[in-house]
Amino acid sequence: MAYKAVAKEVLLNDFQSMCRFAVYRGKPITLKKLIFEPPHNFVEQSRRPREMIITPINVDGYGLAWYNLEVHPEPAVITSEKPFWHDINVARIADKIVSPTIFVHVRAASPGLLVHQANSHPFQWKEQIFMHNGIISDFKRCMMRAIRQQIADPFYSHLLGTTDSEHIFHLYLSIRQEQPTLTMAEAMLETIARLNTLAEKHGSDLILNMALTDGKTIVVTRYTSIEKSATLYYTQSSPMFPEAIVVASEPLDYRDTSWQTFPLNTMMVINERNELSMIPIPNPFLKDGHLPSARPVTLKISTPTEN
Amino acid sequence: MAYKAVAKEVLLNDFQSMCRFAVYRGKPITLKKLIFEPPHNFVEQSRRPREMIITPINVDGYGLAWYNLEVHPEPAVITSEKPFWHDINVARIADKIVSPTIFVHVRAASPGLLVHQANSHPFQWKEQIFMHNGIISDFKRCMMRAIRQQIADPFYSHLLGTTDSEHIFHLYLSIRQEQPTLTMAEAMLETIARLNTLAEKHGSDLILNMALTDGKTIVVTRYTSIEKSATLYYTQSSPMFPEAIVVASEPLDYRDTSWQTFPLNTMMVINERNELSMIPIPNPFLKDGHLPSARPVTLKISTPTEN
Amino acid sequence: MAYKAVAKEVLLNDFQSMCRFAVYRGKPITLKKLIFEPPHNFVEQSRRPREMIITPINVDGYGLAWYNLEVHPEPAVITSEKPFWHDINVARIADKIVSPTIFVHVRAASPGLLVHQANSHPFQWKEQIFMHNGIISDFKRCMMRAIRQQIADPFYSHLLGTTDSEHIFHLYLSIRQEQPTLTMAEAMLETIARLNTLAEKHGSDLILNMALTDGKTIVVTRYTSIEKSATLYYTQSSPMFPEAIVVASEPLDYRDTSWQTFPLNTMMVINERNELSMIPIPNPFLKDGHLPSARPVTLKISTPTEN
Amino acid sequence: MAYKAVAKEVLLNDFQSMCRFAVYRGKPITLKKLIFEPPHNFVEQSRRPREMIITPINVDGYGLAWYNLEVHPEPAVITSEKPFWHDINVARIADKIVSPTIFVHVRAASPGLLVHQANSHPFQWKEQIFMHNGIISDFKRCMMRAIRQQIADPFYSHLLGTTDSEHIFHLYLSIRQEQPTLTMAEAMLETIARLNTLAEKHGSDLILNMALTDGKTIVVTRYTSIEKSATLYYTQSSPMFPEAIVVASEPLDYRDTSWQTFPLNTMMVINERNELSMIPIPNPFLKDGHLPSARPVTLKISTPTEN
Repeated sequence: MAYKAVAKEVLLNDFQSMCRFAVYRGKPITLKKLIFEPPHNFVEQSRRPREMIITPINVDGYGLAWYNLEVHPEPAVITSEKPFWHDINVARIADKIVSPTIFVHVRAASPGLLVHQANSHPFQWKEQIFMHNGIISDFKRCMMRAIRQQIADPFYSHLLGTTDSEHIFHLYLSIRQEQPTLTMAEAMLETIARLNTLAEKHGSDLILNMALTDGKTIVVTRYTSIEKSATLYYTQSSPMFPEAIVVASEPLDYRDTSWQTFPLNTMMVINERNELSMIPIPNPFLKDGHLPSARPVTLKISTPTEN
Repeated sequence: MAYKAVAKEVLLNDFQSMCRFAVYRGKPITLKKLIFEPPHNFVEQSRRPREMIITPINVDGYGLAWYNLEVHPEPAVITSEKPFWHDINVARIADKIVSPTIFVHVRAASPGLLVHQANSHPFQWKEQIFMHNGIISDFKRCMMRAIRQQIADPFYSHLLGTTDSEHIFHLYLSIRQEQPTLTMAEAMLETIARLNTLAEKHGSDLILNMALTDGKTIVVTRYTSIEKSATLYYTQSSPMFPEAIVVASEPLDYRDTSWQTFPLNTMMVINERNELSMIPIPNPFLKDGHLPSARPVTLKISTPTEN
Repeated sequence: MAYKAVAKEVLLNDFQSMCRFAVYRGKPITLKKLIFEPPHNFVEQSRRPREMIITPINVDGYGLAWYNLEVHPEPAVITSEKPFWHDINVARIADKIVSPTIFVHVRAASPGLLVHQANSHPFQWKEQIFMHNGIISDFKRCMMRAIRQQIADPFYSHLLGTTDSEHIFHLYLSIRQEQPTLTMAEAMLETIARLNTLAEKHGSDLILNMALTDGKTIVVTRYTSIEKSATLYYTQSSPMFPEAIVVASEPLDYRDTSWQTFPLNTMMVINERNELSMIPIPNPFLKDGHLPSARPVTLKISTPTEN
Repeated sequence: MAYKAVAKEVLLNDFQSMCRFAVYRGKPITLKKLIFEPPHNFVEQSRRPREMIITPINVDGYGLAWYNLEVHPEPAVITSEKPFWHDINVARIADKIVSPTIFVHVRAASPGLLVHQANSHPFQWKEQIFMHNGIISDFKRCMMRAIRQQIADPFYSHLLGTTDSEHIFHLYLSIRQEQPTLTMAEAMLETIARLNTLAEKHGSDLILNMALTDGKTIVVTRYTSIEKSATLYYTQSSPMFPEAIVVASEPLDYRDTSWQTFPLNTMMVINERNELSMIPIPNPFLKDGHLPSARPVTLKISTPTEN
């Protein structure tokens, strides 16, 4: 059966079924300056990403969010199930909107999985937005139910889609509600710790490149429980983005030597004064400096025809 | 806030936020004969339904399913988040496809609730499809989590959207898996019984006009736990549909006197030989011949901006 | 045939197949203040318009445009083929964007006609945007080809859809290119004059409620060649919109007595200093104070199945 | 400007901005057998085509058409602006529909050009459908207006989109109406002859891989006015497709040695008895066995922001 063939492909490419994202914080710029102007912009990272191994494209939805704190504490958020460059609206607003804090994401869903708006990043809760590039392997088999048991109201009823990513965000929100004294960074570390425990118990692997903000503080992670990881880069001194910090899955210009590799198993925190700090993320899967290989997974594709 | 106004409207119209559906079983006909040709067809029931009290339209998605058992035991299913008449594909295939068993549904989502394909009826699991016109009031507050606890694998991981309707279907599928000796009708009665218990416990009201088939047996219900109900009609002798049984939320032709009111709190079963039987549905909310008034509900709209 | 029935309906309702729009000019406000907050806002004018006679809804696409001249001379434009309230993006950006010049439009296409983004208003050319509520009757039979013969390059190759409205705008753009000394108001009068001539020749009727701006000057018309017209209202002193002029197909609040009827066969010009003037539009169809009845039209629906 | 960068890319890749298509004629099979089951199926030809030089993907819409002449003389047609594999409906109907005559197409639009349903192939007029893989270079500059002058009513008013392909089909339909004694093959040769003349006059290049049918006769061409061409293959003896002729832009299985190169500047005609003949297409651009190089083109992207 044709669809079985698709299922098999997903299995093989599991860890390459990833996305691309970028975070901007600094001197206010137009959205266009971040997403369209760079040589390796998000049309390129969508159509011709360079550092994804097998899945060649990111055309299963996109999202944009930006803050204008003088007008509103919450971000403006646009998400879509379309390929990024299909949407002429993005091209028609991107050079008319200026912001100091911008998130952008292009998605690569596994073939056979639902592509719809509720599965597009970034996810929002009031002032906060979250996006993810990576995977919780075998998410639907056990992890989905296990994570949901830790998701408190009102976040439980706010789950709209079926991605591992949205569930991670709602786990984070639940932790912040339970422990309101935690900083964003501390709550994110606790989120990763809980995911580690669940992944250990249920036999999942984790690749967790994540970005989170409330419009003021920004938290970005690059984390993996296995020897594979998703790429991440950042710059604080790009000539293209003066007075700004930019983090991206792939450098926005490969000739711009200011881009540095984001260290693995590390959290970056950017505060309201645009000061950057790096915090190591405890990794219980690391033994003698080595991470384990990816586990074989039994993929269940969640389409109506395939279960 | 504008969105608050929308939320309030939803509250007032809660029980009118309904849909329209039809079921056809009989001599094979084109899809068009059912959905486009009747005077009060599904363009009309979408744009100008007559028996919905306040919400005037059903434009938040549609779905079609039909069986061709000589080719495949599973139905062909088309669902969409679009208004029914926006989709020229439906018009271009409806007179080229012939089937003896057809389901059609047009959706009216509450304003502010997500309109996407995964929330469009009919829902499918292998040979079986299900559609619903009605509501579990206050679904997201408690009932969603409570129902999910009774949904077994693999159905749990197959939940793709956030409607009460899809959850009811997956509860039914779980009951059939647990008790494989039950007939479809018996499993549906058990589903309603479990929903009654949960509704009692969590303070929800139920309006359950439902249709279910595996391509052979068809089960249709008209049920309510309160004094309001959703309309339903059927005919076995329409000149427009010879040798067929048709059930619909509104008669497909108000001048066709063969349409009868579908009795309340009743289940219709149509077997493979197209024989029809009516079974009463036990209703624990009925006291001295009276059903209670609808409860006031505290609506939580599940958009990212509103929680 | 079902589709024939649809075609017939279109014929009868031809002049009611209209849209709703609004124009805002004044003290910068959020988009939300205009489109969501008023009691008779654009969710209402989309779902429950009050002054459209037969076609009950405006759910065949929408559009929004706003200017932020400090950032860019061109407007930000968002158009969609979706029903207005389906799109959660609109709700999520509307309270984060502030502008002194806002256009909004919700469309009612005739059933059977293509609903896609290229047919959604407002239409844009560089700094200019245009929207229309009304009709050129029997447009596709003769008028489309006749108008196109007067559309110059580069506007000809910029026609993306099949609406009468987009053609009117491109005729206007061609006139401005041919006669660059004309003001916007003069070019719009010339556009109407040319349409009058063509309508006379080809036997079409015209209902031309139109709004046009380059971000500085705004031109709005209410015009008809027949005894029917499309409603239009305006206010300069609404308590809800201080220091602003608002024009809308239906008052945004029926209790707000500041809304006045926009006079028929009249053009409103709002200049950069927000000064308003009214100019009569010459109407050659007016004889002895009377306009003729609508002509019978032979509708050709432009779907692939119906020609 | 970012969008300028996109425009430039389009210019360079112009002749690679192509599509993939397939035609099936033979023993009735399910749609799935053609589009999903082969190793190099249309998910693959959409995501990972092998014989397109630079543009890597075909994700800008798709279309399917099939005939069931016992039910209706016209084809069932489904077109969409979505990537092919996004649409779960296709997966859910493809194994329930059986046909002896199937067309399938996946589109690669140039970035910046409108991606909407009206631009998706196949195009339909009553019994006839048409699809195209190739280009009329610089189409919008002159050729669009010139071709339209040769398009007669009622076809002129039936033009719904802005592709060169749809215009070619409507020119063909006009020629058939003018000269009703022509066979389909003769009318297609005349269409190519007229395009040659216009291309010569206006300085365009032509790549015309086309497929046409009325459900009975099938006409397929592989033609080019320049030294570049689009690939095309066919098989009459594939073990995967017994008793059938299949034509495809890329072989559906590269290990299946029955696939042959479709000769250049040739028309294949398959009659109602499934007999195949090959007819040379006169090519006035061929001088001494050589075709000219592609001309430099000045691309005009037809988005509202870019003209």
